[in-house]
Amino acid sequence: MTAATAQLLERLAATIEARRGADPARSYVARLLAGEEDALLKKLAEETAEAMLAAKAGDRGALVREMADLWFHCLVVLARWGVGPAQVLGELALREGVSGLDEKAARQSAQKDDR
Amino acid sequence: MTAATAQLLERLAATIEARRGADPARSYVARLLAGEEDALLKKLAEETAEAMLAAKAGDRGALVREMADLWFHCLVVLARWGVGPAQVLGELALREGVSGLDEKAARQSAQKDDR
Amino acid sequence: MTAATAQLLERLAATIEARRGADPARSYVARLLAGEEDALLKKLAEETAEAMLAAKAGDRGALVREMADLWFHCLVVLARWGVGPAQVLGELALREGVSGLDEKAARQSAQKDDR
Amino acid sequence: MTAATAQLLERLAATIEARRGADPARSYVARLLAGEEDALLKKLAEETAEAMLAAKAGDRGALVREMADLWFHCLVVLARWGVGPAQVLGELALREGVSGLDEKAARQSAQKDDR
Repeated sequence: MTAATAQLLERLAATIEARRGADPARSYVARLLAGEEDALLKKLAEETAEAMLAAKAGDRGALVREMADLWFHCLVVLARWGVGPAQVLGELALREGVSGLDEKAARQSAQKDDR
Repeated sequence: MTAATAQLLERLAATIEARRGADPARSYVARLLAGEEDALLKKLAEETAEAMLAAKAGDRGALVREMADLWFHCLVVLARWGVGPAQVLGELALREGVSGLDEKAARQSAQKDDR
Repeated sequence: MTAATAQLLERLAATIEARRGADPARSYVARLLAGEEDALLKKLAEETAEAMLAAKAGDRGALVREMADLWFHCLVVLARWGVGPAQVLGELALREGVSGLDEKAARQSAQKDDR
Repeated sequence: MTAATAQLLERLAATIEARRGADPARSYVARLLAGEEDALLKKLAEETAEAMLAAKAGDRGALVREMADLWFHCLVVLARWGVGPAQVLGELALREGVSGLDEKAARQSAQKDDR
């Protein structure tokens, strides 16, 4: 991952932010930001389904492309709710730092199973 | 986003890779990598659902945490299928470089609607 | 489909209703009805993911079982929100009656694509 | 639920079956049956997401409509994989008959948590 790529999520978030208020007829991102809330959230379910099906088919190229679609729409959702990738990465870094990534994930999973 | 955070996805991917073959009884990641393929893929659907519901509830803190969960499980899926975040970020960079992020997304979306 | 089976959805809905207020420690349905709203809704995403993956694997037996799980959890969701299978079937019957199932579905789909 | 409604799922399944091989340009169902497998499966994820969001918003009317959409697309999936609602209802009846619906569901859920 080059330095340019490393900052890509932040740069994409800035690009998305810059589309806010653009003409929805001409910008897909402006349409997602200004349109129905549920329509944007539903995109997450769609892209996740596509990533799952690509993985299930064993198609790595498709998996990478669908993951890119999913992460992109995640960034749009974060932008619409006033947060960004820095917070998500910060949350991941916190977990890693506090107690070890794996142990934290295991603990969370155990809690979920208790529900 | 600090430099340390910027490389977080790669570092998380390396940590996940290091868990491969660890004792599934003690490592959540080892369990996801060695267990049933469908069980891992289903986690994507679960985490996406939680992120959607957090957003719908207007709870930004929960949204950030659920997105962190989702991205983490995305990294585990990528690892299991032998790819990583660099490829996904590369795909996003390619789209950005070739034709502008927004236009590409719009074109893709139009194609999908034709299905 | 025998007559007994034909009324199964209504009978299941009645059974679910009867569990309302039962001891959550002993009844799975009571737990779903009394627990966190999001935990119940997330079950829909999980069961749908399992049905998708069973279909993708070409496993008809698993598809039938996962669809049964999905429909069962749909009934629990309907019960929690104070409606039932009769309303859903009524909605389907209405569409069928008014304008032909297929045309209605096509029109709806077209509207969705316009979003 | 009137007798006519009670047999609705079977009647819808027959209508869907009758669309097989129809002109995809004119029939939405024919398009779902003849198109990309993943596109049909992805519809399940979409409709489930819409039902979840309608429930989360507390909108009962929308919940009923989205459930109708979901069940309709479930029937199309079943048709494409060569099974039908009778098998799904049969599976639900079996569970109910053998050991009590609730206990079965609880047992299944416990098994899933063990994964």
